[in-house]
Amino acid sequence: MMIAIKQVEEAFIKYVNKMVAYQEAISLMGWDLRTGAPKQGVEQRSNVIGILSAEAFQMSTSEEMAAYIAKLSTSEAKQSLSQVTLKLVEESKKEYDKNKKIPADEYKEYVILQSQAESVWEEAREKADFELFRPYIEKLVAFNKKFIGYWGYKENKYNTLLDMYEPGVTVKTLDDVFGKLRNQIVPLVKRISESANAPETEFLFKHFPKEKQRAFTLEILKQMGYNFEAGRLDETVHPFAVSLNPGDVRVTTRYDENDFRMAVFGTIHEGGHALYEQNISKKLMGTPLCDGTSMGIHESQSLFYENFVSRNKSFWKQNYDLLKEYAPDQFDQVSLDEFYRAINESKPSLIRIEADELTYPLHIMIRYEIEKGLFNDEIAVKDLPEIWNQKYEEYLGIKPENDSVGVLQDVHWAGGSFGYFPSYALGYMYAAQLKNTMIKDLPNYDKLLEEGNLLPIREWLTEHVHQYGKMKEPLNILKDITGEGLNVQYLIDYLYEKYTKIYQLT
Amino acid sequence: MMIAIKQVEEAFIKYVNKMVAYQEAISLMGWDLRTGAPKQGVEQRSNVIGILSAEAFQMSTSEEMAAYIAKLSTSEAKQSLSQVTLKLVEESKKEYDKNKKIPADEYKEYVILQSQAESVWEEAREKADFELFRPYIEKLVAFNKKFIGYWGYKENKYNTLLDMYEPGVTVKTLDDVFGKLRNQIVPLVKRISESANAPETEFLFKHFPKEKQRAFTLEILKQMGYNFEAGRLDETVHPFAVSLNPGDVRVTTRYDENDFRMAVFGTIHEGGHALYEQNISKKLMGTPLCDGTSMGIHESQSLFYENFVSRNKSFWKQNYDLLKEYAPDQFDQVSLDEFYRAINESKPSLIRIEADELTYPLHIMIRYEIEKGLFNDEIAVKDLPEIWNQKYEEYLGIKPENDSVGVLQDVHWAGGSFGYFPSYALGYMYAAQLKNTMIKDLPNYDKLLEEGNLLPIREWLTEHVHQYGKMKEPLNILKDITGEGLNVQYLIDYLYEKYTKIYQLT
Repeated sequence: MMIAIKQVEEAFIKYVNKMVAYQEAISLMGWDLRTGAPKQGVEQRSNVIGILSAEAFQMSTSEEMAAYIAKLSTSEAKQSLSQVTLKLVEESKKEYDKNKKIPADEYKEYVILQSQAESVWEEAREKADFELFRPYIEKLVAFNKKFIGYWGYKENKYNTLLDMYEPGVTVKTLDDVFGKLRNQIVPLVKRISESANAPETEFLFKHFPKEKQRAFTLEILKQMGYNFEAGRLDETVHPFAVSLNPGDVRVTTRYDENDFRMAVFGTIHEGGHALYEQNISKKLMGTPLCDGTSMGIHESQSLFYENFVSRNKSFWKQNYDLLKEYAPDQFDQVSLDEFYRAINESKPSLIRIEADELTYPLHIMIRYEIEKGLFNDEIAVKDLPEIWNQKYEEYLGIKPENDSVGVLQDVHWAGGSFGYFPSYALGYMYAAQLKNTMIKDLPNYDKLLEEGNLLPIREWLTEHVHQYGKMKEPLNILKDITGEGLNVQYLIDYLYEKYTKIYQLT
Repeated sequence: MMIAIKQVEEAFIKYVNKMVAYQEAISLMGWDLRTGAPKQGVEQRSNVIGILSAEAFQMSTSEEMAAYIAKLSTSEAKQSLSQVTLKLVEESKKEYDKNKKIPADEYKEYVILQSQAESVWEEAREKADFELFRPYIEKLVAFNKKFIGYWGYKENKYNTLLDMYEPGVTVKTLDDVFGKLRNQIVPLVKRISESANAPETEFLFKHFPKEKQRAFTLEILKQMGYNFEAGRLDETVHPFAVSLNPGDVRVTTRYDENDFRMAVFGTIHEGGHALYEQNISKKLMGTPLCDGTSMGIHESQSLFYENFVSRNKSFWKQNYDLLKEYAPDQFDQVSLDEFYRAINESKPSLIRIEADELTYPLHIMIRYEIEKGLFNDEIAVKDLPEIWNQKYEEYLGIKPENDSVGVLQDVHWAGGSFGYFPSYALGYMYAAQLKNTMIKDLPNYDKLLEEGNLLPIREWLTEHVHQYGKMKEPLNILKDITGEGLNVQYLIDYLYEKYTKIYQLT
C-alpha cells in the first residue's frame, strides 16, 4: 500500500512538472512579446499562448488531477508524503475547487469578455469616455458576483476576491489598517501640501542619456545582489519582473531621458521582485510552489528595496557619487541633502503609478473602498466616475479633470482583477513591518547601506521570506518573522518620521 | 455522414494546431537559449523543452492521431476534404508510421544515446580523439540500421535515411549527380590550385567593427526583402534562421571583427532561409505544412542568395560602395574587381563550413560516400578516420593532420543525423537549376542586382517555391519550375564559367 502511494506521488509530481513546464513556455512567450517580438507574429503567438494556457488550465481541473488529489488526501497518504507534496496537494486542491466550480461555458464566456474589455478599456481611456467601457465593467462585475456565488464567502462577499490575491486577509483587517492609515496620513498630506519647505526638484529633469542610466542601474542591481547569471535586464514599455525558473528571473525597465527616476527606482522595484524569485529554494523547482506566496508578500519585497533601501539617505551616501559619475553635469551643484529631499518630494497627484511614497497608500485605499462597495451592492458601476472623483478630492485634495486620469487609469478592472489593489498597500505595510524586525538582527542597517553592502539584507530576506516560495502563507511569514499579525503602525511611524523631517514640520 | 467528416476534420485541424503551438514554444525557447538566456536557467529550461517535445511526439503517435488518420483516409472522406487537409493527413500518416514503427523503449534509449553522443563528441573533437567517440557512433549507426529494418527500404538501405530529409531522392540519383560533379570539379580544383592567378585577399582581414558590420548587414537584409516587421537579427555563436510562425522568422549571425565575410555572407545565407519561411502562404499557418518542404529546397534558398546573389559581381557594383561607407579605410585601395575576386577565392580546405563555392560540394560528396558505405556494410566505423583522410587527399589534395579537423568536425553524426549531408549539395544544385529558369523570366537579372532591386527575385521565388510550404514535394517543385528533374549540369556550368574567368584559366 505504501508503495502504491509512492507511485501516485511520483506520477503526481510529474504531472505538476508538466503544468509548470507549460507555464515557463507561456511566460517566455509573454516576455518575448514585450521585449521585441516582431509585430506580424503577434497574432499567431497569441493563439499559441492561448492553446498552452488552455492546456494548463485543463490539467488543473482534469479527472486525472481529481484522482491524484483524492488518492493523496487520505489520512494514510498524508502520513507518508513529504511536506512539499502535502503542500502541493493542498494548493492543487484549492486551484481545482476554484476552477471546477465555474461552469465551463461561463468561464469561456468570461475569458472572451476579459480580452474584449481590455481592448475597449484602452480605447475608452484614450478618449476619456467611461460610458464606452461601462457595459464591459458591468458584465465583469456581474460575472465576479456570480463566481462568488459559486465559490461561497465568509462574512463579506469581497473577502472571496481578496483571498485570491492575499490568502487570509479580509475586509475586517483592511478596514482596520486602512482606517488607521487614513486617519494619520490624510492630515499629514494636507500639512505637507501647505508647507513652505517643499524641496527643489528642477534638477531631476535634465537630460540623462539612456545608456548611462542603464549602466548605473546595472551597478545598483549588482549591489542589491541580483544574480546576472540567473537573469537579465531588458527594456519594455511597462516594466516588470518575470520568473521563468529560479535560474532565469528577468527584469525589464523603461527609460525617460528627462527623468532618470523612472528607470532607477523602477528597476530597483522590479529587482526586489526578482530577488524573491531567484532565491526560492531549489527544492521547489518544477512545482507551482516555486513562486511568490502572494501578491502582497511579493510587493513587500519590491517596495522594501524601492522605499526602505533606495529612498533612504544612507543608500545615497555612496551611490550619489556613483550616480554623478554616470551623469556628470546634472548634479554638480546639488548637495546630497538637496538630492535626497528632491527624490522624496511628496505631492498629491492623480496617477497611482506616479505617486510618491506618502500619498501612494491613499490611491490604493480609494480603489479598495470602491471595490468593497461594488461587491456589497453599495456602489453601482454607473456611479464609478463620480465616486472616484469625490474620493480623490476628499483624500488627496485634487480632482481628475477627466476619466482618463481618473477611474480609467488602471488596467486591473478591465482584466477582471478585483481584489488585487489592496496587495499593493499590504506589501507596503509588510515591508515596514519587516524592516522593523530586520534592524534588530542588523542594527547596522544604515551603515550597510552607506557602504553599499546590501548582501546581508538580501540574505536576511532570503532566510525569512524568499526561500519558502509558496510553502508558507503570507500571514504566517509575517507572524514567524515579527511575532505579530499585520500592524500598520510601523508604516505610519516610518512615514511620519521621514516626512516631518524632510518638510521640517514642527 | 458528410457532416461527421467535417467535424472530424475540424477536430483534426485543432489537434495539429496544438502540436504546432508546442513547436512554436519549443523553437522560441531554443532561440532564447542561444541568444542570451541566463546560464543558471539552462538546466530547467532543457527539462521544459524535453517535456514539451515529448508531448508533441506523443501526440504524433497517439491513438487519437491514428483515429483521425483512419477516419480521414477513407475514399469517401477524401472526396470532401480540402487539398490542405488531404496533405496534412498524408504528412501526419507518414510521421505516425515512422515514429510508431520503432518500439517505444528503443526510441527512448536512442534519444538518451543521442544526447550522450553529442556531449562525448564535443570532448572527442576537442581532444582530436576518434576512439573516444567510436563506441557512440557505432551504436548510433547500429540503431539506424535497426530502424531501417523497421521502416523497410527500396533498392538501397541508405535510401530510407535520404528520404527523411529529401523525399524522392535516392542513391541512384545521387550517384549519378555526384559522379558527374566529381568528374568535372576535381580537375577544375586541381587546375586552380596550380594557377598563378590567385587573387590577393589580405585586405579582407582588416579590423571591421562589429556595429558597422551589423549596420551594413541590416541594409543588405532589407535589400533582399527580409521583412523586419516579421523578424529580427541577433547574435549567436552558431548562426541560424528559425521560424516561429510566418510572421516571426528570426535570423542570427556571428561577427568576426577581422573577417567581415563571416557576418555578411552568413547573414545573407540565413536571410535566404528566412525569406522562404516568411513567405509561406498564410493559409497554412498553424499547421505542420507551414514549413520548408525539405532540407534541400531550404538550402537552395539560402545558397541562392549567398552564391547566386551575393557572390555575383553585379551585386557588388552598388553594394561595394555601400560597404565602403561602413568600413571606410579597409577597401580604399581595392578595386571592385579585386574585391570580387578576393571574395571568390577558391582553395582546398579541411573544414566544410569554411569552404568556398567551388570546393564545397566535394566536402559533401565525401560524407555521402562514407554514409552510403556505412549503411551498406561496406565501411566499418573503426575505419572512418582513415577513409575520411584518404578521400580528402583524393578529392581535395590535402590531408587532415588530426581527426578534429577531419572526421570529427561536424556534429551531425553525433546527433544521429545520417542522410542529412546530401541536402546541402542538393540545395546547391537546385539553386543553380532555379537560377537557369529564373533568368528566362527575369532576363535583366544582373541589372536588378546592380540596382539593388532584389524584390523581383524574391517575388519569383515566393511564387514558385516559398508559398507552397510543404504542400509540394521537393522534386515536384523543381519539375514544375524547370520542366525537368534534378540536373547537375547547371551547377557545373556555373562553376566552370565563373572560376575559369576568375582564375583566368585558358
